[in-house]
This record gives sequence, structure tokens and C-alpha cells, in this order.
Amino acid sequence: MKGTLATIAIPGAVGALAACADENPALAIAKATGSTPAGHASEHAPAAAAPAAAAPALSRREKADAMDAMHEKGVKAFPAKTEGKGNQLLKPRLVGGVKVYELTAREMQWEVEPGKKVLAWAFNDQVPGPQIRVREGDRIRVIVNNELPESTAVHFHGVEMPNDQDGVPFITQPPIKPGTSFTYEFTVPNAGSHMYHSHHNAATQTMLGMLGAFIVEPKVPTAAEKADVDYVMILNDGPHGYTLNGKSFPATEPVVVKKGQKLRLRYMNEGMMIHPMHLHGMHMTVIAKDGWDQPAPWKCDTLNIAPGERWDVIVNCNNPGTWAFHCHILTHAESQHGMFGMVTALVVK
Amino acid sequence: MKGTLATIAIPGAVGALAACADENPALAIAKATGSTPAGHASEHAPAAAAPAAAAPALSRREKADAMDAMHEKGVKAFPAKTEGKGNQLLKPRLVGGVKVYELTAREMQWEVEPGKKVLAWAFNDQVPGPQIRVREGDRIRVIVNNELPESTAVHFHGVEMPNDQDGVPFITQPPIKPGTSFTYEFTVPNAGSHMYHSHHNAATQTMLGMLGAFIVEPKVPTAAEKADVDYVMILNDGPHGYTLNGKSFPATEPVVVKKGQKLRLRYMNEGMMIHPMHLHGMHMTVIAKDGWDQPAPWKCDTLNIAPGERWDVIVNCNNPGTWAFHCHILTHAESQHGMFGMVTALVVK
Amino acid sequence: MKGTLATIAIPGAVGALAACADENPALAIAKATGSTPAGHASEHAPAAAAPAAAAPALSRREKADAMDAMHEKGVKAFPAKTEGKGNQLLKPRLVGGVKVYELTAREMQWEVEPGKKVLAWAFNDQVPGPQIRVREGDRIRVIVNNELPESTAVHFHGVEMPNDQDGVPFITQPPIKPGTSFTYEFTVPNAGSHMYHSHHNAATQTMLGMLGAFIVEPKVPTAAEKADVDYVMILNDGPHGYTLNGKSFPATEPVVVKKGQKLRLRYMNEGMMIHPMHLHGMHMTVIAKDGWDQPAPWKCDTLNIAPGERWDVIVNCNNPGTWAFHCHILTHAESQHGMFGMVTALVVK
Repeated sequence: MKGTLATIAIPGAVGALAACADENPALAIAKATGSTPAGHASEHAPAAAAPAAAAPALSRREKADAMDAMHEKGVKAFPAKTEGKGNQLLKPRLVGGVKVYELTAREMQWEVEPGKKVLAWAFNDQVPGPQIRVREGDRIRVIVNNELPESTAVHFHGVEMPNDQDGVPFITQPPIKPGTSFTYEFTVPNAGSHMYHSHHNAATQTMLGMLGAFIVEPKVPTAAEKADVDYVMILNDGPHGYTLNGKSFPATEPVVVKKGQKLRLRYMNEGMMIHPMHLHGMHMTVIAKDGWDQPAPWKCDTLNIAPGERWDVIVNCNNPGTWAFHCHILTHAESQHGMFGMVTALVVK
Repeated sequence: MKGTLATIAIPGAVGALAACADENPALAIAKATGSTPAGHASEHAPAAAAPAAAAPALSRREKADAMDAMHEKGVKAFPAKTEGKGNQLLKPRLVGGVKVYELTAREMQWEVEPGKKVLAWAFNDQVPGPQIRVREGDRIRVIVNNELPESTAVHFHGVEMPNDQDGVPFITQPPIKPGTSFTYEFTVPNAGSHMYHSHHNAATQTMLGMLGAFIVEPKVPTAAEKADVDYVMILNDGPHGYTLNGKSFPATEPVVVKKGQKLRLRYMNEGMMIHPMHLHGMHMTVIAKDGWDQPAPWKCDTLNIAPGERWDVIVNCNNPGTWAFHCHILTHAESQHGMFGMVTALVVK
Repeated sequence: MKGTLATIAIPGAVGALAACADENPALAIAKATGSTPAGHASEHAPAAAAPAAAAPALSRREKADAMDAMHEKGVKAFPAKTEGKGNQLLKPRLVGGVKVYELTAREMQWEVEPGKKVLAWAFNDQVPGPQIRVREGDRIRVIVNNELPESTAVHFHGVEMPNDQDGVPFITQPPIKPGTSFTYEFTVPNAGSHMYHSHHNAATQTMLGMLGAFIVEPKVPTAAEKADVDYVMILNDGPHGYTLNGKSFPATEPVVVKKGQKLRLRYMNEGMMIHPMHLHGMHMTVIAKDGWDQPAPWKCDTLNIAPGERWDVIVNCNNPGTWAFHCHILTHAESQHGMFGMVTALVVK
């Protein structure tokens, strides 16, 4: 059967890899489904085009080798170094028993993957903004300094606030004008994996980066939620591309654990699309939705996370190896130029 | 830090608000994600453009003020008056122990938000059509009069019908031709939050408005589902824009309750897209899916509702205030011109 | 009321059905929502255009009759014969106690619906590839022969593999070059409804057909999951259109059962979009997610299935008749030319 391979006609086969995007089946597919982010193909194509264009008479095997080399290059680059790291734990100042956090929103350039810098509106020069971790019952104060060209406001998504601290301009407060500050202060009411983000011109502001994790630890954690490793993964799409914690593959961060450890993942979707996250090698046990315990934890390997949702899962890391871990909308994770976007790895040592 | 604000360069800042959509970062984002409904930006832009266009030398603060004024105007207009109200309870005639409902499908203009009239194909001149509420075991008759230019048929989505009453042309009945009527009659089999809608050329007909709530009360309600306020919220997208019960913000209807009341929300998605509905200030306890009790109710603040799904939730309204309540696909809820589309408020007095 | 029908103006009514797609409300809707697959309208339009174009003076009733005739033709053609059948059970060879399966990937033309042939990259000349059914604890060997113009690799999605059998090029193995073979061998670890598919250039390769069901029967089935009829339904979108087990309506396969039988459906989504599957006439009880038992089975009639997910449900087939069964994103299931795509029927005899 394989003996006939050299002689069969391959009418629809992938041609010279980057001769022309419009003649390329893979790109035609991306067009037909509309699910490749605008500009992605062209970003990658030039780099890939050179070798193929220089060799119009490549054999099928040589073309396959050229494609594989691109894929390998991406994987070998992982985890690639980029400037800036988001979602870093923010330490509070203690002022008279109140934990005081300061968030300064500012415009900047953010490196999403090596060499790809995008306009960001960021809290404390990070995308996602710094991670805030508090405990149920804490008294906290969050000072927001607005150094952006627009007004803003911060909503603590999932936190059952006193109404006047809810962060919705013209409903609960005036907007925070450029060059001014606003202070939120409240006693933290409900535990769970929550978020903070802009609630003013939010389709623009949050997509440019004005978001972060707001984790509330319970006064008494349940056995189910105690873990050796606690990892927040913020999913995003939009003008920065498909990102995990503000970075695209191969610049995403691997999750690294030791064999036998219990890993808690806190997924948060700050984008506009669903992202069904698929973990290879081990299943996930879903223990909480939007910070609330699930009454009956359940298992899966692919968890569909919609915009605004948070899901907490436990992984018993008993299967050693490096495991692919990605959004299963494949056009968010791989092109013919290799893996990109919402891809990382769980490394069980 | 803020002292430097006046002197920093702002290369990517929002320019004159509506000078040119293509130069505007917010619109560029909308384009990149493809999630702003076609025509929405242009609908809003003209009104917004005037002040900005007349003042090209606006300072950053003046531009922010102009944007905020647009946002405030939208919020202050809420709930805006429009012609027509959908989802109104339809009272039956009683004929020999049978509850008789009459639905007349007709073309009309429907006001989605102030000044925005769209072509609708509606039942009884309402979008959504009138709400039908019956009880398990009732004998009912639904007379459908077709005054549309096309044939139609009505499917009772979620109701476990005798096959010949299921409303699927050429499978269970002939289509109802223009100018004719058809009568459905059945004993109501299963309780729950169901829907009725066209099942003929349905991608056109239901998107133009041929849909409504079909609520079946159980013979014996459980304690979990008893509520002080029972509110049906039908989500839609398509040619009418992003709507809640047929209206777009600021013409949507607020849900108004008293502090301490128990609210039952019945979400129904009649659109083509998911809509993760996010309630501020209080969580929701999910008690039923598609009219069937959930064996273990669970809590959330953001509930992803897919086309054709119905979800019943309970909110214990213990947090006073006016709370934003919206789809968390932000491009369904806010543009740089302010909130629009799938936004309303829960008002706890 | 109906007496006035002949005299009312119908400004927005559907005009000559296919005179011009751009003037046609139904197509305008499809454009506005962006949810009709590219090219679908034009595929169907020519056939439909002829009669309408030839009769510009058709009355409203004649136009409705013409549309209805198209719809009827589609329904009456169901289940339409096409060349090729996917998802056929693959019998293993037994070699020294090991079940040996052979999958050969090859380019071919696949008939999705009568007369519509598309380029496919298929395993064993089937889309989906052949169904593999094994039992927990089996030792199996899967030989993959690559006769494609590209390299490939096979990932067993949901199976908790030894790392070196996980099928991810450059992470767990080298790619399988064109004209070469690779053998996976492992002891089947976890029961459930799983899948196999390409994990190399996967956004192209799986969308062209390189996927199949991998069902692992448990050593001891629970009472909940025992069924009279066990049916795998693989959902897909992309370049082949909207398909169920590789075929579009009217070429989809009906699910046929006897009254009183217990049906187990195993949904698997290999596409890029969600598909909320709606069954008429009877509800579904959800018993497993991604092959893992749900701790508390729950009922629904519309189940939202995201890319990469598998959901197992039970239907107690107690309502006789032919029942529509379709994706409830209506633009995946019906156009003005009739039902198409992700539509089939459950026939309870």
C-alpha cells in the first residue's frame, strides 16, 4: 500500500508553504471557519516563507521536513523568554489593620511572545495585573491611580460588595478621570477565585489588559481544596492574541509540579470567546465554580470556560512527563506554522 | 508618578472619538475580534461624532469627559421608554375545560431601543411573543394564525409532545401556509421553563421574533423553586441586535425586588451565540436545566447559556442597591459609546 | 383579522427567493450574524434560483409554496445515500494477546451530502475514522501508516497514557513522516468515551478528517450506563461543513430504536465551535463527561458540547415517532432552502 505512495496524485496537497496564503489549504480552512485571529497567519508567514520560496522544486518529504522544522522550533523555544511577567503576587501595606493595595493603570508596550509587542493598558505594568490574595473577613483598601488617557473604574467580579464599592460608573460611582485616583475599601465577604477588571469602556479596557486575579482564601479551607501547588490561569483573546496569563506560546509559562503533588488550577476567562481547556495525561476534578464549591465534584479532561467564568479544578499529578495543555479550539492553539497561542505544558517531575 | 502624566507620550491613545472608525483603537479591537455586531458602531458613531469632530484640539481630559458624557447619558436613560412590550402573560379562553390560546404571526416594526425600529415577525405583535403559563396535566389548545408572507409551524421546545403535535414541517405536519391557521392540542406532559418558536425556515423566522416562553408549572412545586418574584429573561442576538426580552439597553427592563425576597430567574436563549450572564452583588443558585430539577443545586455568578438552553436560578436578594446585570461577552454589552445590548439591572430596594 | 391579509403592505417580505442574495432578508440575517458557513448560501442558491427567477410575478402563496417544496424535498430525501460511511467498527487482529489495529491516513474525496465531495485526509478511507472499541486493561497496539503529504501523529484524547505514547510531536515523539509508520502500544488505562485524532498541524489535519472514536468499555459497567443501543455521534464543523459522523443532512444517519429501549448516546465534538444538541420528544439523562461518571446524573433536552468534550447521555425511548434531532444554533441546521448540516432524527418504532 505504501509502495504506491510515490506515484499517487495529490491534488489538494499543501503546496509551497507560503507561496500564497490564498492558495494554501490550511489558511483557506482558517478563513472558512473564521477562527484564526486576524493577522496571525501573516505574522508567522514571512519567517516561514523564506526557505520554501527559495526551493520551488521541494519534494513532498522536503516540504514536510520544512513544516516539521517550524513546529520543532516553536516547541524547542518553550518556555521562551519575554520581557515582563503578569499575575505576580502583590504584597499589601498594612495600615491600621487594613491591607492596602495600590493599582496604577498606565499605557505600555507588552511583549506577548518573543518580538511581538502590543499596546497594553496595564495595572502596575503587568498583563494580567498583579494577583491580589486576601482572606475572607479581611479589611482591604485598593487605591486605583488612573494614568490612562480615558476614565476608568474597577469592578471586583464575583465579590459580593457593598453597592457603592461595585465599580460601575454612573450606577455606583463616578468614573475615575485621567490623572485622578479612587479608593475602594471593604471587608472581604465571600471566598473564591474572583477577578478585578475595568468596568468602564470595558470591551476596550479589559481587552487591552486591565484585569487581574482576586483570590479570596476561605477562613477554613475544605480538604478538597487544599493543594500543594496553587496556580491561577487567566485566559484571554482579543487584540493581544490568544494568551494564558498574558503570554502566547512559546512564551507561556509551564506549570511544574512533582510527581504525587496535588495541583489546584484556577481558570479565569477574561476574553470574549469560550476556551475549552484540555489537559493531557491526567484528568481534572472540578471543585468550584465562580468561587463556590460544587456540591458534587466531577471529573473531566476538557473544561469549557466561558467569558467571566472561573472554575477551580484539582489534578492529582501521578503521571510523570511533560504534558501538552491547551485550548481545544485548535485554531487557538496550532497553525501550519506550529503551536501558538493558548498552549502550555504541565510538567510532572 | 502622576506628576509625570502631562508629559508622557500616548502613542496609542484614543484619538478624536469618531473622526475615523479605522483609526480608533476601540473599533480596531472590535474588528479584530469580530464580535461587535455589524452596524453597531456606525449606528452610534454619528451621534457621538459631532462634538468631537467640532473640537479637534480637545485635551485628554476633555476627550475623557466627552466619552463619559455618552456613557452617563445611556445609564441615565435607563429604563428608556420604547413602543411595545414583549413576553406579556397571555390569558387563555376556557372552552369545555380546555385552555385555548391564540397566536397570530404578523410582520411589524419593533422598537428595540429608542428610535431603533427593526423588521419583526411577531406573535400577537410582541417580541418575544406572549408568555404562556400552564400547569402540568392541563388540556390546552393553541391556535396559530399565519399572516406572514411565508409558511410556518410552531414547535414547543422542551415539551414531550405526542409526535403529531411537535411542529416540524414534513416530519410531523404540513407547514401552515400564509393566510391559514393550525391548531395544536395536547395535555401538558412535563413541567419546566420551556419555549415555543417557529420550526420552519427557523434561522430566519425565530431570529425575526417568532418565539416566546412556555412555562409549565408543576402540580406540586418543590420548596427550592418557590419564589416571591418569578422572572423570565429571553436572550437573543441576530438582526434585532443583542436583546433581553426583545429590548436593548437602555430600553431593557430592570428586575425589581424588595430586600429579602427570593427571585427566580428563568433564562432562555433563543439566539445563535452563547451568553454568559453575570449578576453583580449576589450569586445565583442553579436549580433547573431545561425544566428539569438539578439533582444538586450549585452556585455561580456567571452562567453560560447556550442556544436552546433554559436555566432556572434562585437569587436571595439580600444585598440592597442597583446592580449591573449583563452578558459577560463585553462586546455584547458595552462599546466606547457606552453600555448597550444585553445589559439590565437587578434593583434590590 | 385574516380578512385583511390580501391588502396589507409587506415592506420587508421575502422577495423573489434567489433574485439577489444581498436583497434577501434571510441572507442578510445570515451575514449580520456571521454564522452561516461561507459558501453555503451560494451552494444552495443556484438550484433554488431557477424557478423563482423564471416567475417574477409569483404571488405570496406561490412563493411560499416554492420555499416549502424545497424544504419538503430535503426532508423526503432523508436519509439520503452517499458514498462512504465513517465511524465503522474496526476489528483488531489478535497477536500474542495484543489487540492490533491499523490506521492508514490518506488523502481522498469524501461525499458529505449527495453530490458534495470534499477533500479529506482520512484514516482507512472513512470520515470519521473507524471506531475503536476496547476494554479497560486490554493491551493494544495501533499501527499508524502515514500516506499523506505531511507528517502527522496520533493523540488518544482522554486516555491517560504513558507519556511516550501521547502523540505530541517534539514533546513525546518525532512526527510520523510521509511514507512512514509509527506504532503506539499501551495497556488501556481508563474507561470512557474518548477520541483519537491528529496532534500535528491539527487545526488542518483534524478538520480534514483525521479523527475517530476511541471507546473504552469498563471492566464492570454500572447499571446506569448499560443500554440496548449504543450510538456514537461525532460533531464537526470546518471545511467539510456542519456534520454528524461525517455527513450533512439529508445524508446523516437516523438513530433507530424500538419503543421502550434504552439508548446511550456518546457525543464527541471534533470541531471548532460549540454545538448545543437538541432532541425533540424525550429528554436526555447525562451520565458521563469525558468518560468519567457524573456523580449526580441530570436531565436536559439541549446539551451544549464544546470542542474536545465528550458527553454520554441516556434516552429512555418511550415516545414513539420520528423526532427531529439537531444542533440548536439554527444557522447550523436550517437555511431558507431547508434543513441542512447538523440535523438527523431519532426514530422510535
